[in-house]
Amino acid sequence: MLVRIVMGSSSDAPIAEKVTQFLKKFDVNYEVSVISAHRALPDLETLIEKDDAGVYIGIAGKAAHLSGVIAGMSTKPVIGIPVKSSTLDGLDALLSTVQMPKGVPVATVAIDGGENAAILAVQILALSEEKLAQALVDYKEEMREGVSKMNEEEAVANL
Amino acid sequence: MLVRIVMGSSSDAPIAEKVTQFLKKFDVNYEVSVISAHRALPDLETLIEKDDAGVYIGIAGKAAHLSGVIAGMSTKPVIGIPVKSSTLDGLDALLSTVQMPKGVPVATVAIDGGENAAILAVQILALSEEKLAQALVDYKEEMREGVSKMNEEEAVANL
Amino acid sequence: MLVRIVMGSSSDAPIAEKVTQFLKKFDVNYEVSVISAHRALPDLETLIEKDDAGVYIGIAGKAAHLSGVIAGMSTKPVIGIPVKSSTLDGLDALLSTVQMPKGVPVATVAIDGGENAAILAVQILALSEEKLAQALVDYKEEMREGVSKMNEEEAVANL
Amino acid sequence: MLVRIVMGSSSDAPIAEKVTQFLKKFDVNYEVSVISAHRALPDLETLIEKDDAGVYIGIAGKAAHLSGVIAGMSTKPVIGIPVKSSTLDGLDALLSTVQMPKGVPVATVAIDGGENAAILAVQILALSEEKLAQALVDYKEEMREGVSKMNEEEAVANL
Amino acid sequence: MLVRIVMGSSSDAPIAEKVTQFLKKFDVNYEVSVISAHRALPDLETLIEKDDAGVYIGIAGKAAHLSGVIAGMSTKPVIGIPVKSSTLDGLDALLSTVQMPKGVPVATVAIDGGENAAILAVQILALSEEKLAQALVDYKEEMREGVSKMNEEEAVANL
Amino acid sequence: MLVRIVMGSSSDAPIAEKVTQFLKKFDVNYEVSVISAHRALPDLETLIEKDDAGVYIGIAGKAAHLSGVIAGMSTKPVIGIPVKSSTLDGLDALLSTVQMPKGVPVATVAIDGGENAAILAVQILALSEEKLAQALVDYKEEMREGVSKMNEEEAVANL
Amino acid sequence: MLVRIVMGSSSDAPIAEKVTQFLKKFDVNYEVSVISAHRALPDLETLIEKDDAGVYIGIAGKAAHLSGVIAGMSTKPVIGIPVKSSTLDGLDALLSTVQMPKGVPVATVAIDGGENAAILAVQILALSEEKLAQALVDYKEEMREGVSKMNEEEAVANL
Amino acid sequence: MLVRIVMGSSSDAPIAEKVTQFLKKFDVNYEVSVISAHRALPDLETLIEKDDAGVYIGIAGKAAHLSGVIAGMSTKPVIGIPVKSSTLDGLDALLSTVQMPKGVPVATVAIDGGENAAILAVQILALSEEKLAQALVDYKEEMREGVSKMNEEEAVANL
Repeated sequence: MLVRIVMGSSSDAPIAEKVTQFLKKFDVNYEVSVISAHRALPDLETLIEKDDAGVYIGIAGKAAHLSGVIAGMSTKPVIGIPVKSSTLDGLDALLSTVQMPKGVPVATVAIDGGENAAILAVQILALSEEKLAQALVDYKEEMREGVSKMNEEEAVANL
Repeated sequence: MLVRIVMGSSSDAPIAEKVTQFLKKFDVNYEVSVISAHRALPDLETLIEKDDAGVYIGIAGKAAHLSGVIAGMSTKPVIGIPVKSSTLDGLDALLSTVQMPKGVPVATVAIDGGENAAILAVQILALSEEKLAQALVDYKEEMREGVSKMNEEEAVANL
Repeated sequence: MLVRIVMGSSSDAPIAEKVTQFLKKFDVNYEVSVISAHRALPDLETLIEKDDAGVYIGIAGKAAHLSGVIAGMSTKPVIGIPVKSSTLDGLDALLSTVQMPKGVPVATVAIDGGENAAILAVQILALSEEKLAQALVDYKEEMREGVSKMNEEEAVANL
Repeated sequence: MLVRIVMGSSSDAPIAEKVTQFLKKFDVNYEVSVISAHRALPDLETLIEKDDAGVYIGIAGKAAHLSGVIAGMSTKPVIGIPVKSSTLDGLDALLSTVQMPKGVPVATVAIDGGENAAILAVQILALSEEKLAQALVDYKEEMREGVSKMNEEEAVANL
Repeated sequence: MLVRIVMGSSSDAPIAEKVTQFLKKFDVNYEVSVISAHRALPDLETLIEKDDAGVYIGIAGKAAHLSGVIAGMSTKPVIGIPVKSSTLDGLDALLSTVQMPKGVPVATVAIDGGENAAILAVQILALSEEKLAQALVDYKEEMREGVSKMNEEEAVANL
Repeated sequence: MLVRIVMGSSSDAPIAEKVTQFLKKFDVNYEVSVISAHRALPDLETLIEKDDAGVYIGIAGKAAHLSGVIAGMSTKPVIGIPVKSSTLDGLDALLSTVQMPKGVPVATVAIDGGENAAILAVQILALSEEKLAQALVDYKEEMREGVSKMNEEEAVANL
Repeated sequence: MLVRIVMGSSSDAPIAEKVTQFLKKFDVNYEVSVISAHRALPDLETLIEKDDAGVYIGIAGKAAHLSGVIAGMSTKPVIGIPVKSSTLDGLDALLSTVQMPKGVPVATVAIDGGENAAILAVQILALSEEKLAQALVDYKEEMREGVSKMNEEEAVANL
Repeated sequence: MLVRIVMGSSSDAPIAEKVTQFLKKFDVNYEVSVISAHRALPDLETLIEKDDAGVYIGIAGKAAHLSGVIAGMSTKPVIGIPVKSSTLDGLDALLSTVQMPKGVPVATVAIDGGENAAILAVQILALSEEKLAQALVDYKEEMREGVSKMNEEEAVANL
């Protein structure tokens, strides 16, 4: 199944890159578009009406309506990444993304949390793709080992 | 010119009533609809495509995308009223309404500020309707007198 | 597939009830437990190690670690509902739930957003259960009609 | 009709420049002044009493009273731009600008949102200037194309 | 010397009453007016131009500009009391009152802190009125004894 | 060893009661006083100079300096309980208690968190009192069972 | 009369310098000390007991208790300057300074607002020093002219 | 007795270093590990089950569950240091650490407050180690002298 990543502006590309790096690691198909919910709503509708994705990931800052608008258009799970902008430290994007009204959920991850959006997408797809389920178990183990290895880093070892 | 008032849910009616009371006072035409940006986007598009209003007023709480989505659909001025809900004291709705990205402004008034949204709409219409311009001057004078009369209220006089 | 709902305290039952009412509506299997991550961690581990659920929903307030701890124990999608408590209006629970570190996502919904957690769970399960996918499409239509009918409510019609 | 831009300090010039660049683009007349509501109130009164503008734009930071004070002096629409200063990330200016009491609205845009203040001013003027109305439609189309072209940017295309 | 108390609305009377009760206790002359900075600026100017007070106390909520505007009109000390309103828990009034730009201070006390505004006014006047200085010393002693007596209250004694 | 509980006002008694109920449960000696750091500093100094306690617990709201001032006077551990007051939902007390400068720690617990302050005090004393150490282990077990029993509560069982 | 400036740490010197520059300009006597309320309370008491100042100015960051503690020791007006530190953008210092309990006011100015603290001190002293009163009138005029001259600055003139 | 320092990531090492520098100064035994509560829970359990420490210090940012999870596993005092990360200025970590539910306290110190966590740990240990108690008295005196010496620093002396 495809993961569709939509960002509100090309300035969100660094966060999108965190997403795609993880999806590549898990060999998951994805497509990326820049489509602003406010500036190009018809294009967004055209895209979502194709209904070709299993999961959507919306990436937007400030009054971040993108993920919520996608969630209004689709019945697929929509993951929202709030992006920190030059004011208010990301709180505006977080509240605009997570505080969705009844009936239209957005699965919100941490501000600028591109990796976690990707992992969550993989977790969702893994429910019906055995290979991904195993990959997640491996990743969890790897992560645990990664933390363990941090104990040998110089900055830590010298404490 | 028509003022179109759109609220996200019938629970926003008390705020909408503040708006309509002021518009009635100024003899301004208005129409009110309940249309959620998230739950009924096609209906919202149908409404805005009629392009029959001079000013829009959006009323919504929580991750309040309604005004922003209207602003994305129209080139008319859109006034946004953030509504306080049961959590976060209206901060979520305020930030979701006011922090719009470049290109798509929402003229935001205070949380639950129905009266001010109406007055702002009248101020905008008054630029091309002389009668409204005079009514605003009268209202300003009346308001000043109202403040002045507050000095005679018992609670104040006894201080 | 089973949805496992875990709440941190029996005082979270009203939020859990919002979840279960929706899951019942969609005929989805669920089980509910009260297990505090802080006060009964071994019991939580025992439960999660059974690995019998497709999706977890954690419900907790204040320094809400429950969903994050489940996410650390499982590779299944974990949905977190931050609960408003008597101080700070739910902001503490929201930030404790959503701001998860890299590698361990929690799909966070709005504060006290029980319904949306349920819908998100159904959306996830629907990727591999055709019947649920159709039910979601029906629900979306029903929701749109519900909004439309709000226009006939007395409080709205009289505006 | 004239757009009058007032800023509270010459340090707000970068935000004012965002405004004037957009107004130039739309061929709208404007005048810019620096007049602090707190430090030069009589000068502000003299300016506003001329009553020669269709729309005012106030630009101020911290306890940003400028737009509100202009709104108290005039019955024309007043747009307020809250400016981020060295502390509190613009939240002080936002709340000081938007939370106006009943009777005296300020049409508030995003923190540092100079472009949007300009566009909102043009939207207001366009209600009685056909040429501007068309220009806004063109701008909206251009904006949509701009978003579309972002998909070809290197940073996006390489994702 | 006179203490001039100005409130933005008669709804601020309960806070003003906290002020006047303390000033009465200290036998300090005061006058109270309701004059909104936004709704009745000329009246405010007339009042402040009388220049008959030693200290001003402004009382206002929401985007609380009243104290700041008085401070712009006078060279006398201005004490500001931010008032909690129905949204945002007083944070808007606090920031609008305290975050004044360079050159125009407002001596801000706690949200709804009527008593402390009065005491601060008395402290200021006491610098040139020996009798008040002594009264403040007595009050401080009385306050200390009051705290001491709290230890005998039933709720405390039973702990 | 004695636990000394100091509250800033008798209005903090309900929070103090949460503390004393837990200390009674663990059979720990305590004494309670009302002494405001601001209104009765010499009395506070007299009390702390007695140096007869192993742990201090300070309870105060608003600009809650009490715990910090005790920490400045003593080298014993000081636990601070921020108290929610009528404005700002306890955030003022939390930040005033926890954000202590280098050299003078206050062990801060949750807003209104009387029980946790007591348990923390017992944990500290238990390092040198074997009986308390065992009581804490028992309490932890009891707490775990308490959570487990919540699953049988009607509100939960009916979900 | 003397203005006594107390800062909590030598790192507050840049803010103190803003204060002293203004006091020098007005030819007001002042003395500056570094005395932490938490780390050197007895030294603070010794200083305040000298009772040789007409006004105190406290400068402190984080859980900023300094001004409040001085206010508890003296019956003279105490001006508090909250200082922005490396976390929380000064909100902690602001709330710790301004939210003082009943009976012990601190006249709080803006975060890092050294100049305004100085002007407020001069305003207070000017009530009994005619020369200062005149200097404040001159300063106000000068400030107004300063704002006026900003209109000729290149950055503004080119807008 | 041993102080066990656990950090959630090696990126927390600079904060951990503040802790260890102080503990070294007081000649207190400590051990440092990197173990994420979310990414390596079983390793954390293994460590805490050793039950070889008198005090724990948890260091973590964002949704900082580490200290709370340790507190759930142990009956020893747990000190939590919230760490500022790239968004939200540390508020997320502070609330996630301090707002613990009833029964499971975390003794929270200031954001990034490594020194204070160390001092608090020493204060706790000093209740049963006379040598440490004396060292704390000496440190307090030294700190007071340090503040006093700040008055001679050039930046201060020149004010």
